Amino acid sequence: MKLIRWGGAGQEKTGVIINDIKYDTSAFGGDYNEDFFEKNGLARLAEFVKANAGKLTIIPDSARLGSPIARPSKIICIGLNYADHAKETNAPLPVEPIIFMKSTTALAGPNDAIITPKNSVKTDWEVELAVVIGKKASYVEEAEALDYVAGYTLHNDVSEREFQIERNGTWDKGKGCDTFAPLGPFLATPDELGELNKLRLWLKVNGKTMQDGNTSNFIFTIPFVISYVSQFMTLLPGDVISTGTPAGVGLGFNPPVYLKAGDVVELGIDGLGTSRQEVKAYVKN
Amino acid sequence: MKLIRWGGAGQEKTGVIINDIKYDTSAFGGDYNEDFFEKNGLARLAEFVKANAGKLTIIPDSARLGSPIARPSKIICIGLNYADHAKETNAPLPVEPIIFMKSTTALAGPNDAIITPKNSVKTDWEVELAVVIGKKASYVEEAEALDYVAGYTLHNDVSEREFQIERNGTWDKGKGCDTFAPLGPFLATPDELGELNKLRLWLKVNGKTMQDGNTSNFIFTIPFVISYVSQFMTLLPGDVISTGTPAGVGLGFNPPVYLKAGDVVELGIDGLGTSRQEVKAYVKN
Repeated sequence: MKLIRWGGAGQEKTGVIINDIKYDTSAFGGDYNEDFFEKNGLARLAEFVKANAGKLTIIPDSARLGSPIARPSKIICIGLNYADHAKETNAPLPVEPIIFMKSTTALAGPNDAIITPKNSVKTDWEVELAVVIGKKASYVEEAEALDYVAGYTLHNDVSEREFQIERNGTWDKGKGCDTFAPLGPFLATPDELGELNKLRLWLKVNGKTMQDGNTSNFIFTIPFVISYVSQFMTLLPGDVISTGTPAGVGLGFNPPVYLKAGDVVELGIDGLGTSRQEVKAYVKN
Repeated sequence: MKLIRWGGAGQEKTGVIINDIKYDTSAFGGDYNEDFFEKNGLARLAEFVKANAGKLTIIPDSARLGSPIARPSKIICIGLNYADHAKETNAPLPVEPIIFMKSTTALAGPNDAIITPKNSVKTDWEVELAVVIGKKASYVEEAEALDYVAGYTLHNDVSEREFQIERNGTWDKGKGCDTFAPLGPFLATPDELGELNKLRLWLKVNGKTMQDGNTSNFIFTIPFVISYVSQFMTLLPGDVISTGTPAGVGLGFNPPVYLKAGDVVELGIDGLGTSRQEVKAYVKN
């Protein structure tokens, strides 16, 4: 199943994609949020879709897509989880996962604009595979970790490198600006994906390929990461863990290359679709 | 006004304290959450309390207190914001505020137990003044920052030092374990407090004073901190900014002293009451 949310920002309705066609599921009731995942929403939604086959309204292609899930309790990110990316940032290979957090107010639709913050000169891109948690997870064993997954989605872990690295710690400072977490286009349930460790992920800026990696290069696998994070905090249904980015970020170029107003970022992961963000400069309302 | 939440964990009802007596305000409707603060809840609650004077039910003293606010979108913390604490941890004085985040699943009532996490040997205490945001704040000027405050509350920023410092970054890893954010006893609106920069704050372990500081020793004042954080992320109504801890944490002793099962932590801030947590070891459910 592929879940979407659509409509105006902050007013999103729910939907699903079946055979590349988007259908409205607002009649199902409620949002794709903590309560939905906690109360077996995926199974109930599948029943609803089956019971209403042929009767669901088609969503026009012109409709804006929102994040495929409502604002979660937290967005956890794993730093430097691809060996090639660690190398390009001159960082040693992590001996255990680096965890940081993204303010959930950064959440945006997959094709919404990226707004470079006021006084920002180092806004950068990071294509990532994001895991959405399906049920409360605390001290989960690696062997059981995938039982706690609701699905997967595409994430651009937009990062302001000066804020992140040069402004007196921690990384959180450069990760949570508004629009810095474009998520989607859709949440794919696990059955929609191929092998988790064989997915290509890529990102282009103005049509030029900047990142072209594969989850086969994970330093820490998805089950390991879920188990690991759950040793330090309780994960709630709907929470997001973003699993790190491969080589090719702007910081890794010599000299570094950063986003500027007018740039267009496109990204994708096998089985998780593509997203596209135009870059705009912050303007005071 | 002093706001409280009371009753079983996860089932809290709302209340207020007037002249040291606790009154139930459940009939007001809704929780002390983002929606409450956003929709002018403090003023509406004050009206409700006035209109129902003499008719509100008294809450028994035996009732458990929850966090005085519902789970916020984020808990931001400021690191090393007292010169004496920076010195005891051998850290240089920050040139600008250090920001880190606490998982909101760490939220607990003021007198709930602190559970030392599985495999933890360095669980530490930090008495802190926490600011609760009253309205959406983005790029706020320092001179206007206090207009964005709903009130203040007492916070123990419980920290696992090995997870925080020795487990391959960032600090977030040692800050968000379950029960690591006992908040309250109450949320005090700004009129209830004296001068923000003249408040004594203290913490005892097993009756022995460990921290005895004063907000006069802030490196960065509360208005500066609110303005600063709002340059990096949007603050939502109900969000928490915890403003740092004075000297006297367990990490600062030689050799360091950490919490163990059976210890009792008591803490307080002028005008914000006191809280008390017993320490228990994690036991698998």
